[in-house]
Amino acid sequence: MGTVVSARVTHNNGSVRHFLHPVQMAEVSDEERIELEYAYDPLFLPSVVPSTDGMWRYKALLPVSDDIVYPLAVGGTPLVSLPGLYASMGCASLWLKDETRSPSGSNKDRATALVIEQALHTGVRVVSCASTGNVAVSLAIGAASANLRAVIFVPAQVSPAKLQLMLLSGATVFKVAEGYETAVALSRQAARMFGWYDRNTGYNPLTLEAKKTVAFEIWEQLGRKFPDVVVVPVGDGVTLNGIVKGFRELMLCGVSGRLPRIIGIQAEGCQPLKLAWENHTRVQMSPARTIADGIAVGLPINATLTLRDIKETAGSFLAVTDEAIRQAITYLAEQCGILAEPAAATVIAGLHQALKTGLVKKDECIVALLTGTGLKNPDYLQPGSNSRAYEVSAHIDHLQSVMRELHF
Amino acid sequence: MGTVVSARVTHNNGSVRHFLHPVQMAEVSDEERIELEYAYDPLFLPSVVPSTDGMWRYKALLPVSDDIVYPLAVGGTPLVSLPGLYASMGCASLWLKDETRSPSGSNKDRATALVIEQALHTGVRVVSCASTGNVAVSLAIGAASANLRAVIFVPAQVSPAKLQLMLLSGATVFKVAEGYETAVALSRQAARMFGWYDRNTGYNPLTLEAKKTVAFEIWEQLGRKFPDVVVVPVGDGVTLNGIVKGFRELMLCGVSGRLPRIIGIQAEGCQPLKLAWENHTRVQMSPARTIADGIAVGLPINATLTLRDIKETAGSFLAVTDEAIRQAITYLAEQCGILAEPAAATVIAGLHQALKTGLVKKDECIVALLTGTGLKNPDYLQPGSNSRAYEVSAHIDHLQSVMRELHF
Repeated sequence: MGTVVSARVTHNNGSVRHFLHPVQMAEVSDEERIELEYAYDPLFLPSVVPSTDGMWRYKALLPVSDDIVYPLAVGGTPLVSLPGLYASMGCASLWLKDETRSPSGSNKDRATALVIEQALHTGVRVVSCASTGNVAVSLAIGAASANLRAVIFVPAQVSPAKLQLMLLSGATVFKVAEGYETAVALSRQAARMFGWYDRNTGYNPLTLEAKKTVAFEIWEQLGRKFPDVVVVPVGDGVTLNGIVKGFRELMLCGVSGRLPRIIGIQAEGCQPLKLAWENHTRVQMSPARTIADGIAVGLPINATLTLRDIKETAGSFLAVTDEAIRQAITYLAEQCGILAEPAAATVIAGLHQALKTGLVKKDECIVALLTGTGLKNPDYLQPGSNSRAYEVSAHIDHLQSVMRELHF
Repeated sequence: MGTVVSARVTHNNGSVRHFLHPVQMAEVSDEERIELEYAYDPLFLPSVVPSTDGMWRYKALLPVSDDIVYPLAVGGTPLVSLPGLYASMGCASLWLKDETRSPSGSNKDRATALVIEQALHTGVRVVSCASTGNVAVSLAIGAASANLRAVIFVPAQVSPAKLQLMLLSGATVFKVAEGYETAVALSRQAARMFGWYDRNTGYNPLTLEAKKTVAFEIWEQLGRKFPDVVVVPVGDGVTLNGIVKGFRELMLCGVSGRLPRIIGIQAEGCQPLKLAWENHTRVQMSPARTIADGIAVGLPINATLTLRDIKETAGSFLAVTDEAIRQAITYLAEQCGILAEPAAATVIAGLHQALKTGLVKKDECIVALLTGTGLKNPDYLQPGSNSRAYEVSAHIDHLQSVMRELHF
């Protein structure tokens, strides 16, 4: 705790007054600026430089050398507890793992970092992938930062806002009319033919390796404890598999505890895994009709591993409507100050459902993984229809009358 | 460094093969997924939980109590060295302090955090400010996270993209036709009349206190050393004053060294401080004709302190054109993988100019402060006119022929 002992007050005309107490705004004129002063002492400075390793702090469990050359800072995202959120949900211990704070605003940046780190060590100059959008933006900026070339295959109906970011970052982008699944197949074939480094999620085992670090961080940030439940959006399933692998590896390293139950959230308009889970059938190709483009995967690449992981963790799948996702986006902005994309907001809609049905208990320790920022596609960050700005003139009387009308 | 010793390979049909070596992608079929395995050991886990204090790690030099209640994670942003950047600039030691990684993507989040922390301890329920856009978004999400009400005054010509974010986060927004300076005066008057907590930059000394923590972080991240030069965008001047206050306080705490030279960057279409500096006159109200809305301040609130700080640090002002700012945005995306807003990109345009004229030497240790993300206003994140995505069909032959045309 710092103790302000004095203040320097500078007038716009350049004259300076010194005060031997910590001046408040109300004590000076609008023409004066306050600079607070302390009884400075070397002891006030931290003695240890903080770690800036991010996800590389787990190097002992990653297939990397000691010299990390990837230049962007990845991992070490905040685990936050928001009063508005846990109060309105009625939960005792509810945490958001905020991956929106990654370099491209998405948890995909972890996988991108590890893949590019590997590519840089093997001397390959081109990295490639297929993506519904977030992996693509992540790879485009990751490759730009490392001076590599990115080749990206996207479904033709990719979000224009995300496409713009890939192109701005200098990626070569191919639009595939037949959709995401075909884009994946084509990109894999092209990577083999042209000798590119293939980042495709699920196929490249490094994507799992990178994504497991989220579990390590959650464990450390909870004070080296496991949560009871983790809520995760599911498209291809790789994020979910990575998290489970992380918790499993912690146990293999001797950490005691029980694997958290994993609740995988799909969109109602694209829920191949939930349907297979409920009906005990093989995964069937599903249409992809949802605003949650980040998880609009009709035939999940890691279906088998995902069904296995839900079973092994005694978890479950839930599906949420686009309307519930939109409400969750507004809720996250208004109650939490977090701007989430549709795929990320599914965890709030899903958690709401899980608490209602008793699938998750209010006294459990719950972590929801917020996978990506809404800022990459502002179309979904729309305020409610009766939300608007009010025009006022410079007169305080006018402002007062507007505020009376607003019952402020 | 982690050593992969074995692998589990799961077929889509559910069958599993174990390998006693780390399998590569090329060794398995497209129907199989690889999970890498290690010789797990408790020693592979970090023994100390990493600090997640962010800017609060400097509590001894901040007017806060030991119990921080503000819920969002602020500060501790990366200081990155990007090979594409320093190579093309020809610099030996060039760092970007990446404030785009803050909660609302702007360095304003530090000031918001400290102001709201204070408001929460005083029991006030409404916080208010005037802003050209970034402070407003920052205060809107900060207040939402802390369950406070935000009242925001913006110039009528505020960016619609930023306005949308304020409204989504539940802020009450007033548009002031007369522009930013009038919005500031009106908001200060209203705060006094209605008893709101006034966050206005410059007037509230906590905005300086919070922003000084960037200097503390730069010093720690450079291994407890001062840089020679810091390049900073300048609108009201508070960010610049905060940084200089931080370095000054480090010296008052016994850190030896010389204050870095501060190069303040203004936009050519709005350069009241640069003109006053060069002509040795008082600051004159300037028009605000620039795409860099974050620093489009015609009459800077902290003009006197800013001129003083530039003088005391033997620094200087530079002005950059909108065209140079646009080029810098593209450059940052393509060479650095960083999506910056116009005001932030001015530091790259300014540094380019400073290196050319010899104001900054290539062998100096240089830090450029990237104040805000471009994602809040994608209008300025436009790829070049001949940058486009290519449509391909699912056939590799088609892709090959497109690539030949591209001379890839």
